Amino acid sequence: MSELPDHVDIRDVTLRDGLQIENPIPLSAKLELLAAIAATGVREMEATAFVSPSKVPTLADAAELAAELHNFPGIEFSALVASPNGAKRAIAAGLRSLEYVVSAADGHSRANVGRDTAEATALIGDIVAIAHDSDVTVEVIIATAWDCPFDGPTPPQRVLDIVTAACDHGVDRLAIADTIGTTTPRRVTELVELIKPRIGDIPLGAHFHNTRGAGLASAYAAVSAGITRLDASVGGLGGCPFAPGASGNIATEDLVYLLRDSGVHVDVDLQKAIDAARVAQRAVGHELPSALLRAGDRILG
Amino acid sequence: MSELPDHVDIRDVTLRDGLQIENPIPLSAKLELLAAIAATGVREMEATAFVSPSKVPTLADAAELAAELHNFPGIEFSALVASPNGAKRAIAAGLRSLEYVVSAADGHSRANVGRDTAEATALIGDIVAIAHDSDVTVEVIIATAWDCPFDGPTPPQRVLDIVTAACDHGVDRLAIADTIGTTTPRRVTELVELIKPRIGDIPLGAHFHNTRGAGLASAYAAVSAGITRLDASVGGLGGCPFAPGASGNIATEDLVYLLRDSGVHVDVDLQKAIDAARVAQRAVGHELPSALLRAGDRILG
Repeated sequence: MSELPDHVDIRDVTLRDGLQIENPIPLSAKLELLAAIAATGVREMEATAFVSPSKVPTLADAAELAAELHNFPGIEFSALVASPNGAKRAIAAGLRSLEYVVSAADGHSRANVGRDTAEATALIGDIVAIAHDSDVTVEVIIATAWDCPFDGPTPPQRVLDIVTAACDHGVDRLAIADTIGTTTPRRVTELVELIKPRIGDIPLGAHFHNTRGAGLASAYAAVSAGITRLDASVGGLGGCPFAPGASGNIATEDLVYLLRDSGVHVDVDLQKAIDAARVAQRAVGHELPSALLRAGDRILG
Repeated sequence: MSELPDHVDIRDVTLRDGLQIENPIPLSAKLELLAAIAATGVREMEATAFVSPSKVPTLADAAELAAELHNFPGIEFSALVASPNGAKRAIAAGLRSLEYVVSAADGHSRANVGRDTAEATALIGDIVAIAHDSDVTVEVIIATAWDCPFDGPTPPQRVLDIVTAACDHGVDRLAIADTIGTTTPRRVTELVELIKPRIGDIPLGAHFHNTRGAGLASAYAAVSAGITRLDASVGGLGGCPFAPGASGNIATEDLVYLLRDSGVHVDVDLQKAIDAARVAQRAVGHELPSALLRAGDRILG
């Protein structure tokens, strides 16, 4: 049996990845949801993205939302950016932590940001320089780390090339993302074992979608392979544009249940995560796929 | 990384555990569903249960269904029984493979069959004798192997006591069941590793519910620990009476996806399992929780 880590950090991505393909909701509803998530005890949140408002209308209020984050001390907020210009906007809005996404597959990269992988990788240096000039940290998230909806399975070497470029440019953190929710435990273990020896002390996180039901199994495999940073969203909010109606991110409350039962400590309170999932469900106006939202915590006799 | 087995046998339990808490459906609808499941290539099916028709009205047509099973050669059908009398009825109806359920927790055992664990265990010998007299095989399924909705966590020694009794009485197969869908991978690995050294050549299966989202993670842990027999239902049909509205059995198609992606061979065709899940969905008249039913197979570019 693998040794599990004592503690896993959960980053809540409800407000960005969770809401991204939803219809826009008012800033007030986002702040109510943010408060419910903050009450879970979570220490890191992906608050929004500074990207094209026409491409992601739900996140067009990024600067307004950013202006409210000071009301939630004790949480480290991050924002996703897709270009040096986005990085500048995020920093101007007060963010201290950026995520820059690079797709390891050309097909997804072009569809997502209009650049191929090499072009997107070439911007890492600029973004790190802009951020570090303002004492802001940068995480490079490697999207389509296992599969691309256009290009099929991603050759691991394409992931490693981004890892190498990111390390060379001094990024603060790395993450691998199963953007379309297709990976499974064995492939997770293999990729983590390939990356870990190459990144020294740089923290490595992982981001899974439950699109094909294997999200928690993959998360457990990641944790068993030594990953101590996982993304999740309350209620499992967050669909996949390539699989309409499918499950979204792994649900925070389901992940907390699994990790707690495995003896792994997390900062997030399970019952409060279920409460926040209910707030999310009301905010978007449709059922969310989380299991705990229906079943509740384990019944203890 | 654990070594995975080359092949895993999936037993489809849609018609029994899947339908058990649904409203009764006509025999003709069951036969249509059976045909769709048979078309997946699955080699074993739990067809029905010979239990009290008043307690499980959906399965009151057990004998009528059994009379149709000869139309599906190549599939080994089994039926669940809860008493020597049930075993006799099943054999009289033509079944060649029985499952006898013993709950490892007194609370669940009393609620389920009106006997405590010791009383239910004491019947194993009678049931094996009745079955073997007719060259019929018996599997003992240990219910609430991890948790009981009344008694809380199940002490592993209670499971091992049933295992010992079952082996002493010469049962043909054993299985451990997460009846209320609360276990997680670490506890699965631990229990399998505790049982395996004590059962010699007797095959050990596992039965998981996805009630708290960890069903596939637990199934993967079981397979990683050497289990090569898993139960599943198409669409993930099969609710839990203790968690209304929650997910049911692990979905056959989600399990097939996970195992295929792990390099483990199964007899079940993924697309045909999704087709069968659609038939199940129509038969019961409500949405089923399977992920693949929504997302479909992985998109390969």
